[in-house]
Amino acid sequence: MAEMTQNQLLELVNSTQTAPGNPRVRQLTQRVVSDLFHTIDELDVTPDEFWAAMDWLGRLGASGQIGLITAGLGFDRLLDIRADEADAKAGLQSGTPRAIEGPLFVAGAPLSQGEVRLDEGEPQGEVFVMEGQALDLQGQPVPHALIDVWHANSQGGYSHFFPGMKPYELRRRIQADAQGRYRFRSYLPPGYAIPPASPTSELFAALGRHGNRPAHIHFLVVAPGMRTLTTQVNLPGDTYLDDDFAFATRDGLIVALERGVDPAGYESLGITAPMVRARFNFVLQPALSESESLPLTRMERVRS
Amino acid sequence: MAEMTQNQLLELVNSTQTAPGNPRVRQLTQRVVSDLFHTIDELDVTPDEFWAAMDWLGRLGASGQIGLITAGLGFDRLLDIRADEADAKAGLQSGTPRAIEGPLFVAGAPLSQGEVRLDEGEPQGEVFVMEGQALDLQGQPVPHALIDVWHANSQGGYSHFFPGMKPYELRRRIQADAQGRYRFRSYLPPGYAIPPASPTSELFAALGRHGNRPAHIHFLVVAPGMRTLTTQVNLPGDTYLDDDFAFATRDGLIVALERGVDPAGYESLGITAPMVRARFNFVLQPALSESESLPLTRMERVRS
Repeated sequence: MAEMTQNQLLELVNSTQTAPGNPRVRQLTQRVVSDLFHTIDELDVTPDEFWAAMDWLGRLGASGQIGLITAGLGFDRLLDIRADEADAKAGLQSGTPRAIEGPLFVAGAPLSQGEVRLDEGEPQGEVFVMEGQALDLQGQPVPHALIDVWHANSQGGYSHFFPGMKPYELRRRIQADAQGRYRFRSYLPPGYAIPPASPTSELFAALGRHGNRPAHIHFLVVAPGMRTLTTQVNLPGDTYLDDDFAFATRDGLIVALERGVDPAGYESLGITAPMVRARFNFVLQPALSESESLPLTRMERVRS
Repeated sequence: MAEMTQNQLLELVNSTQTAPGNPRVRQLTQRVVSDLFHTIDELDVTPDEFWAAMDWLGRLGASGQIGLITAGLGFDRLLDIRADEADAKAGLQSGTPRAIEGPLFVAGAPLSQGEVRLDEGEPQGEVFVMEGQALDLQGQPVPHALIDVWHANSQGGYSHFFPGMKPYELRRRIQADAQGRYRFRSYLPPGYAIPPASPTSELFAALGRHGNRPAHIHFLVVAPGMRTLTTQVNLPGDTYLDDDFAFATRDGLIVALERGVDPAGYESLGITAPMVRARFNFVLQPALSESESLPLTRMERVRS
């Protein structure tokens, strides 16, 4: 080695090897490193710029906000678009549109049969019920589907990440009944923004972008033999519905809200006055492999 | 937004803007994001692969090892090659070759006049002296140059990073005399490897690469009106001299070791028996701007 040009260095970095290693990791690393070498050269990146970026990347990793940045730069949505394209190419019928998981899922929420109160008896604002069925592509019920639901509190915070919230607050698992029916009572979550004074907000300020997400509710739906569905529904009327910082809003996932719904039949959820209701069915695709129906989130998959 | 193709999403990510922001950050982010979108598509990156990479990146940031990875993937050396190329293009004469700073510099080491013992009176192995002069391109002394010197201990560890070491152990600043002369006593540091069971070692195992650096001593040389010089010297005979994991070894930076040198004249360093000596002059370029002679390390520059 010793003295060399940029291209000779790149060739050396990409070819150095003393053991077989993992060919796929080598392939991907070579590509990413080559692209970054070319970016540094073609855009004439200075040492100060490079080290400022690395300083930021280190602080980003330490802050736990990698999953916010990937969403805000479109990568989470990209993976969904690619999954949709793969389905279309394979001639597979789609069910409920997938939407990004986001970085704030927590496994192991308390499990209820058929219905549950997410608000834990502490209602805020309008009483809200969401209900529906898990169905297959033929419209037949998927019995006993397991539905993880999680949403933000009135300040836009998620339990396990936002200070002062109880464990699993606004997070539940509902096992649907034999007809695939589920329902839950909660309140309507607000939209929210990325944390201020954080590595993520620093980058978004420099990009001249806002960091707002429209109001939404997350779901992860699992059933034997069916593909695990990760999705979100959006609440109508939000300012950022068509300007989501995470590019995650999708046609077919904006629920209609019925107001002044008769409370009859909802007594088991403690409802005695007119309420707001959304009806939504989860249409699941059949799993093509056992792996596709695993009840694993994105991070659980790669760490398992 | 709502439904879109990969290309439409990329265009949206790159064009979204609600304020001017910083045009340079926008330009660089757009380039990096575009390259990554294309990599994901062309190499058919799966969600599991993407999230495994993000999981690794988060752990890398949290571990403080970003600066090890940039060195190991050649970026630190790339910046030096580019600085050399810029000098050559501008017709500037080069001095002592620059070499990478590495991630383990600590500012504010104890200051001595002319000479110092780095080993703090606790010699290990052979007694080693390094000495020389700070010179300008015409070979004239640079009076009172300030030389930061730091190296690893016998286990390959640096103080402030390696457990059990004293503050500033094996780190000193020497103010050269009016003739630019400096000297220090220490012991010969060994080569060392990246930490095992760390995000860095994980990637290097997957790349089939070793993580060894040959034995070396770091310097940062500052003087008014001169360009700050960051460099390293290597000790001859090391197995990894031509196979440095950080690609940092350079012609002109491998010192010769004279053994059995007469101790006469070195009494002030506590030397009374034959020793090992290396002679090395730091040849400094003139600073083209005030900023070039700032006594700042790479991270101090971007954080200041």
